[in-house]
Amino acid sequence: MAIKTRKEYIDSIRNLKPNVYISGEKIENIVESPYLRTTINNLSLGYDWANDPQYEGLLTNWSTLINEKVSFWAHIRKDDDDLMQMVRAINNFSGKYLCTMCMSMGLAALWAITYEIDQAKGTEYHQRFKNFFIKLQREDLRFVLGVMDPKGDRQLPPSKQPDPDLFLRVVEKRPDGIVVNGAKMHTTSAPVAHYFVASPSRVLGPDDEDYALAFVCPTDTKGITFITRPAAGPLEQKDMENPISSQIGFVESLSVFDNVFIPWENVFMCGEWDFTGGFINYFSSYVRLAKGTCIAARTEMLSGITAQVAEYNGVEKAAHIRNKITDMIMDAKIGYGCAVAAAKLATVHPSGIAFPDILTSNAGLYNTRLKYIHHLGVMQEIAGGVVTTMPVEADYKHPEIGPLVKKYMQGKVGTSVEERYRILQLIQDMTASRLTGYLIGSAVCAGGTPETNRVEVFRNYNLAERKENAKVLARIKSDPYWGGGL
Amino acid sequence: MAIKTRKEYIDSIRNLKPNVYISGEKIENIVESPYLRTTINNLSLGYDWANDPQYEGLLTNWSTLINEKVSFWAHIRKDDDDLMQMVRAINNFSGKYLCTMCMSMGLAALWAITYEIDQAKGTEYHQRFKNFFIKLQREDLRFVLGVMDPKGDRQLPPSKQPDPDLFLRVVEKRPDGIVVNGAKMHTTSAPVAHYFVASPSRVLGPDDEDYALAFVCPTDTKGITFITRPAAGPLEQKDMENPISSQIGFVESLSVFDNVFIPWENVFMCGEWDFTGGFINYFSSYVRLAKGTCIAARTEMLSGITAQVAEYNGVEKAAHIRNKITDMIMDAKIGYGCAVAAAKLATVHPSGIAFPDILTSNAGLYNTRLKYIHHLGVMQEIAGGVVTTMPVEADYKHPEIGPLVKKYMQGKVGTSVEERYRILQLIQDMTASRLTGYLIGSAVCAGGTPETNRVEVFRNYNLAERKENAKVLARIKSDPYWGGGL
Amino acid sequence: MAIKTRKEYIDSIRNLKPNVYISGEKIENIVESPYLRTTINNLSLGYDWANDPQYEGLLTNWSTLINEKVSFWAHIRKDDDDLMQMVRAINNFSGKYLCTMCMSMGLAALWAITYEIDQAKGTEYHQRFKNFFIKLQREDLRFVLGVMDPKGDRQLPPSKQPDPDLFLRVVEKRPDGIVVNGAKMHTTSAPVAHYFVASPSRVLGPDDEDYALAFVCPTDTKGITFITRPAAGPLEQKDMENPISSQIGFVESLSVFDNVFIPWENVFMCGEWDFTGGFINYFSSYVRLAKGTCIAARTEMLSGITAQVAEYNGVEKAAHIRNKITDMIMDAKIGYGCAVAAAKLATVHPSGIAFPDILTSNAGLYNTRLKYIHHLGVMQEIAGGVVTTMPVEADYKHPEIGPLVKKYMQGKVGTSVEERYRILQLIQDMTASRLTGYLIGSAVCAGGTPETNRVEVFRNYNLAERKENAKVLARIKSDPYWGGGL
Amino acid sequence: MAIKTRKEYIDSIRNLKPNVYISGEKIENIVESPYLRTTINNLSLGYDWANDPQYEGLLTNWSTLINEKVSFWAHIRKDDDDLMQMVRAINNFSGKYLCTMCMSMGLAALWAITYEIDQAKGTEYHQRFKNFFIKLQREDLRFVLGVMDPKGDRQLPPSKQPDPDLFLRVVEKRPDGIVVNGAKMHTTSAPVAHYFVASPSRVLGPDDEDYALAFVCPTDTKGITFITRPAAGPLEQKDMENPISSQIGFVESLSVFDNVFIPWENVFMCGEWDFTGGFINYFSSYVRLAKGTCIAARTEMLSGITAQVAEYNGVEKAAHIRNKITDMIMDAKIGYGCAVAAAKLATVHPSGIAFPDILTSNAGLYNTRLKYIHHLGVMQEIAGGVVTTMPVEADYKHPEIGPLVKKYMQGKVGTSVEERYRILQLIQDMTASRLTGYLIGSAVCAGGTPETNRVEVFRNYNLAERKENAKVLARIKSDPYWGGGL
Repeated sequence: MAIKTRKEYIDSIRNLKPNVYISGEKIENIVESPYLRTTINNLSLGYDWANDPQYEGLLTNWSTLINEKVSFWAHIRKDDDDLMQMVRAINNFSGKYLCTMCMSMGLAALWAITYEIDQAKGTEYHQRFKNFFIKLQREDLRFVLGVMDPKGDRQLPPSKQPDPDLFLRVVEKRPDGIVVNGAKMHTTSAPVAHYFVASPSRVLGPDDEDYALAFVCPTDTKGITFITRPAAGPLEQKDMENPISSQIGFVESLSVFDNVFIPWENVFMCGEWDFTGGFINYFSSYVRLAKGTCIAARTEMLSGITAQVAEYNGVEKAAHIRNKITDMIMDAKIGYGCAVAAAKLATVHPSGIAFPDILTSNAGLYNTRLKYIHHLGVMQEIAGGVVTTMPVEADYKHPEIGPLVKKYMQGKVGTSVEERYRILQLIQDMTASRLTGYLIGSAVCAGGTPETNRVEVFRNYNLAERKENAKVLARIKSDPYWGGGL
Repeated sequence: MAIKTRKEYIDSIRNLKPNVYISGEKIENIVESPYLRTTINNLSLGYDWANDPQYEGLLTNWSTLINEKVSFWAHIRKDDDDLMQMVRAINNFSGKYLCTMCMSMGLAALWAITYEIDQAKGTEYHQRFKNFFIKLQREDLRFVLGVMDPKGDRQLPPSKQPDPDLFLRVVEKRPDGIVVNGAKMHTTSAPVAHYFVASPSRVLGPDDEDYALAFVCPTDTKGITFITRPAAGPLEQKDMENPISSQIGFVESLSVFDNVFIPWENVFMCGEWDFTGGFINYFSSYVRLAKGTCIAARTEMLSGITAQVAEYNGVEKAAHIRNKITDMIMDAKIGYGCAVAAAKLATVHPSGIAFPDILTSNAGLYNTRLKYIHHLGVMQEIAGGVVTTMPVEADYKHPEIGPLVKKYMQGKVGTSVEERYRILQLIQDMTASRLTGYLIGSAVCAGGTPETNRVEVFRNYNLAERKENAKVLARIKSDPYWGGGL
Repeated sequence: MAIKTRKEYIDSIRNLKPNVYISGEKIENIVESPYLRTTINNLSLGYDWANDPQYEGLLTNWSTLINEKVSFWAHIRKDDDDLMQMVRAINNFSGKYLCTMCMSMGLAALWAITYEIDQAKGTEYHQRFKNFFIKLQREDLRFVLGVMDPKGDRQLPPSKQPDPDLFLRVVEKRPDGIVVNGAKMHTTSAPVAHYFVASPSRVLGPDDEDYALAFVCPTDTKGITFITRPAAGPLEQKDMENPISSQIGFVESLSVFDNVFIPWENVFMCGEWDFTGGFINYFSSYVRLAKGTCIAARTEMLSGITAQVAEYNGVEKAAHIRNKITDMIMDAKIGYGCAVAAAKLATVHPSGIAFPDILTSNAGLYNTRLKYIHHLGVMQEIAGGVVTTMPVEADYKHPEIGPLVKKYMQGKVGTSVEERYRILQLIQDMTASRLTGYLIGSAVCAGGTPETNRVEVFRNYNLAERKENAKVLARIKSDPYWGGGL
Repeated sequence: MAIKTRKEYIDSIRNLKPNVYISGEKIENIVESPYLRTTINNLSLGYDWANDPQYEGLLTNWSTLINEKVSFWAHIRKDDDDLMQMVRAINNFSGKYLCTMCMSMGLAALWAITYEIDQAKGTEYHQRFKNFFIKLQREDLRFVLGVMDPKGDRQLPPSKQPDPDLFLRVVEKRPDGIVVNGAKMHTTSAPVAHYFVASPSRVLGPDDEDYALAFVCPTDTKGITFITRPAAGPLEQKDMENPISSQIGFVESLSVFDNVFIPWENVFMCGEWDFTGGFINYFSSYVRLAKGTCIAARTEMLSGITAQVAEYNGVEKAAHIRNKITDMIMDAKIGYGCAVAAAKLATVHPSGIAFPDILTSNAGLYNTRLKYIHHLGVMQEIAGGVVTTMPVEADYKHPEIGPLVKKYMQGKVGTSVEERYRILQLIQDMTASRLTGYLIGSAVCAGGTPETNRVEVFRNYNLAERKENAKVLARIKSDPYWGGGL
């Protein structure tokens, strides 16, 4: 019973009573709220896919923790093959349906860091984390990412902020648990997930001990308020407009913790600031790989939509159109290639979890994410100005003016006006709706910014070795194969 | 009395009764419709500015047609100084307030082509067009651009389309005028302008004679239906959200002509297909200059907003932030530089109108427009993920959760939370709202696509001369200064 | 005895008497000619490395053909691990010593195509090719690449060229062998290799049957003339100047075949034009992977040299310097990542040879090769104008002016003037000598041009599948997970 | 007699006896030395052109100093029209013949700074500088640029360098003049010019007073040694090879000053460190404009050569070839456009000299210079691998193998083999010879690096004003046209 169905998932969250505000309204019933319809559908798709026999082995794994088949989203990846499976899965689902809900899986990195802390300090974090994963796997539950803090003044560390709550922190330690205060930003899909997992968002120093904090709690734990932003699409399902954003959506929460009690069995880090550097490294290696694979897949998606609209417009053979579509494919394949390499070049942590290569994953993501925005613009360009000027669905279906709309929206001879109109609506949804902002943000802000990719690459690259080699080439340093014996 | 006030403008359109549908609703009163509020404001701003003494000489000109001071939007530019003034004006207003309503002025190119046709064929188009401009100038009226046709199958010329109406055409010539049928796409602001000016959208051949058509008519002429798309912003004025799109907006129309009668005095071209090439050239030279200046100015706008949000976030001194802002300024200045050059290198047509240099205007626009989209993404990146995840205005002002929002939206020490929130809302409006699609489309689709820039540059460049010079350098051809006498 | 030493290699070519002209001079003794010194050293390095125990397993393989350890350059790669070894080897040696002599190994693709032809036509090409490889492996010999034809008018196929010899062709078939006429271009290192392997350079049609030709012959076969261009460096070893090009070099030949007889046992294709498409595909998949890995490695080399000269100049901490070095590393890692992926995603041909993934190898190479030239410029920029203006070695060592040179060439306090001078000479060799042209050409011309990368990617990508997915997203096509069941 | 002929110029330098070493050899007769042949020709071309009636008005000006027609290279530019003439001249001559010898003219900026110093301090530098220019104009003499210092450790100011001579400095002030010690780097063409003008290379502080130094002296002044690097080309004129570098060349000198006496009448700055910032600004504004115009013109040159070789290869119609040539033209026109704008937006200094706009000149140069290197690579790519592999001139003309070379170097049907070979030699000279390094260096190092362009743009841009405007848009600040009155 380790793989739930859509219905079982929805039933499982029906009794959760998280404290949620959306657009200033208190949400009483999360399963019925129109605000959460597309987000629930988004998570439900994962349950659907995992139950589809054609995806057996792509979205399911064998867990040695519970000796059962478990879901993609509850798996601990143990080697390069596992990471390759992850790359293939994200490539497939993000490329076809936009989202594989992959960001949270970075938190599996707690597996490694809890192990390290226990080894160094004799704590029992690792077993607690393992217990949490056993539960996740057994019941096929979902958790959301509570990593990013509000951060306040970016120049100051947590303990130097005038308001001490701008990073989530422990305010009291009790025999049975801890009390935490503060908030996490950008929590995607929080109201419809089972658990909230919190972790540090940056490397901390000794003064920031109170902020070295990781734990899990049910989303309806007392004291948590989710101030939730509606998803980008319309509240109701549209027929023609917003074909993406009226089906799937991402609600984002400011998750406020007002003196929330967390029992010790759910605490995975509490004060070990000297392990936050390691954690960030492990976490980011996953997130970069997942994000890099996802954006590359979404770039493949753009290539298909662009080729399709070019065909409806009758320009699919033009050299410059092919050129631009080729650019999309090239960039997608560069991103995919780097993701595959990052999986292939993975290292296995002593705790048994595999981490992707940091250099290729960051370099690939960097290139893909910046190009993605360019390609969004190119897609709109090839579709044409009509994307932002065309009549709306109500016009298209209007008894009087509808026929005029259909007459003047004709494209290539022999193609369907309605199909052309629907593709243009798709492009409008992606490049000229509130969803556009999400697509841009997902490319350049999620999973760390482009600048963090650059920093990681510079920091992890062995430049010293390369400088030594420069000396060999210039014959400053001797070398058996260079200069000496000629 | 050649410069109207905002009030006079609004009064002047109050009695217009154009046939307008917006979102499937028939609009009875254009001045009162909430759908048109931001568009009316946008045009009104032009009237306001032209009445502001500080903009005397920037937005006003002396007309030798009527011997009066006239408005920027009704002026015929006669030399490079006039074009420089245009560049300075668009640079100022698009850089400060996003839009200078400059696209329509490309139709002044009809001034030149009517002159040429008359010279060649003894027609009287030029005097008619002059009469139209005299009226425009005397009463400070506005016209909209009816250039782009629906186009159907892009591979086929107008006369080969299965449906003959996919380009606007003349269907009957009468003693007193002509009857036209078809439609124009992408007509910006049509319901609130006084006139609709139609022109060909492409170079035509002899079989397309019926499509070689230019004329003007009042927007409420019988037989015209404007199927109008709402502007990108909310219908009502917001306080914090959508600071741009709740103030100014651009409604776009599919303008359908159902056997519309146009008296001969308003016809500027009818059948002269052999002059459409010249017209497109003249028109595009203006549009490229105006668009190039505008997008460069909007890039300057991005540099300021980005610098400001970086300051609120406390990261304004970081090298990579400066770097990215410098890129914005560089690209803005390249675009501005090319615009200045296109004005400086202008040629004056025998009819007395000046045309910008086609090479520098196209090359500049090409570079700027593609970079603009990149910089939009960079602005969102520097603002942070919060742009698409932050609590909405209703949360910010909510009695219970508002204080939490304010607490966790704090930025750099000593800066105002509200100011930071407002700048983030501005960035959300620009990069994560329906306005975003307009900004992208305005950059890559309006005024011809990037590909047309490339084609124009290749076509107009004297490559043959350069190839001859290559032969000189390679000593294939003799030259007094190369090779021979050494 | 399957791995020769440097001395054994030189001895083995001592008795070869190829017909070689260099700079218009007939070369009588290839081993003693100063023109060939650096090329012989280049090939010799491969023999040295293969004998170095530290490279055991990186440059040696176990051959199932001869049941012996064989050299990297004579190996047939059978699976993704073999390809990964190739990627690691090229990454190491091209990154450290510029060249791994990897281009010729693309001709191993004849392994697959001879197999296919035999299967289809009952010929015995494959066994012949196998015999050739057994000899190569047993004696550790080297062959050079005879692929590119002179090509004449690029618009015409071989058989339509006014001069029928502009592609190498068979002019006579005899019982004991064939007679071939024509030429091959760009044959690197021909005079110092043991064998010349010829193959078609393009896809051929039925009219071009005579050009569907592959064979091997010793380099000193009667009738072959190598019109050879000197390598880029000086003829003598320099101490400080040209630290690369005075040590290793690449002579390039126009290899002319004047009615050369090839016995049947050395013929691998003769008339099978319908297999040239397959051959080009297989060949290019190797060449793209090898070239992509090489240019990425050379980009890593640039990062080290640039970092080192920045240190000697005292600017290594400047943000913009770090930025530029980071760009180099990013691009190197993208190239390396795509190479690793192409190896990982390899497919195994029925004949037992593995072919790299065509999409990721081409996309990676495309990006890296164009960036490489940019980075060459950046390296010179960071070194400074001094690269092209500094005093020469003769000045540096001059008794009178030498001290002045040393005084004014001082860099960062505490660093050695001589070391700085040597690094600057290295950069001069790479960016301001005849070697520069080779580095550029090697990046953008060798192994197919950037345009061929684009064509391969577009052609091999499954765009049709993506277009279908676009229809699903737009709800034109039904899908179990999209639109229907919501 | 203010415009000399080539012969008069050569005669005028015949009696100069500068102390010159080239490649370690002392040069006794500069006019006869093969090392200086191409450099003398380069400068002579300027004299030739200025005497050509077709260039009247482009390379000649009326001087109000001497009331005579003077040469382009001795003119003080007084307004935007003068700067436009400079832009047109450089565009023409650098585009046709590679070099307009324009860098030195930046030193005309001393005109302005001597004026400012005199105004502030009552000195008489300006009159001295004027006297120098009167002599230059009367006798049509040339001076070279002595700006860049050796600089030693780039992190340290001049006075903090362990060796005080790493920036040129005054070591003694006498009643009749000063004694200077140190060196200048990168002095182009020094041995064949009449004068050496020295100026500071950076902004100086009060501790660096001794380095705030500007003066002029004849090139054969006692105590100066020019350690000169040979030009990039061969010493003798070639027929086919090196068509550029065997005709014109640039010798570069390390110019060492060993206690050189400069009489006061030739001193233009001595100790006024507080004016070095102004000087650098003025100087760089000229240099950026000149360099930006030059590199844009050289990019136009590339477009022609590339189009020509594409034609000889028979690929001139291919879409991707056109595309790449279009990119060259686009970038050239962007550079030219920014140069025109910088001239048009010039400001006139109180001393009567005009300075180009710093923002557009830097932004334009930045873009063009980086693209130039890319386009060099593209030109080689389109020419083909043959650029670095083709037989040399000695082979082409060889009695035996020459016919083979000609046979296999055939290109497009109907074109001349020799012409193709010559164009390929031209491309080899530009992309695969020592000249290549000069072209790269001239693009990225000369006239300040790309980084200095960025710094200048960021520093001179009014970002504060833009940030204020951001506040208006976000409705943080009130504005008559935004937010308030709606």
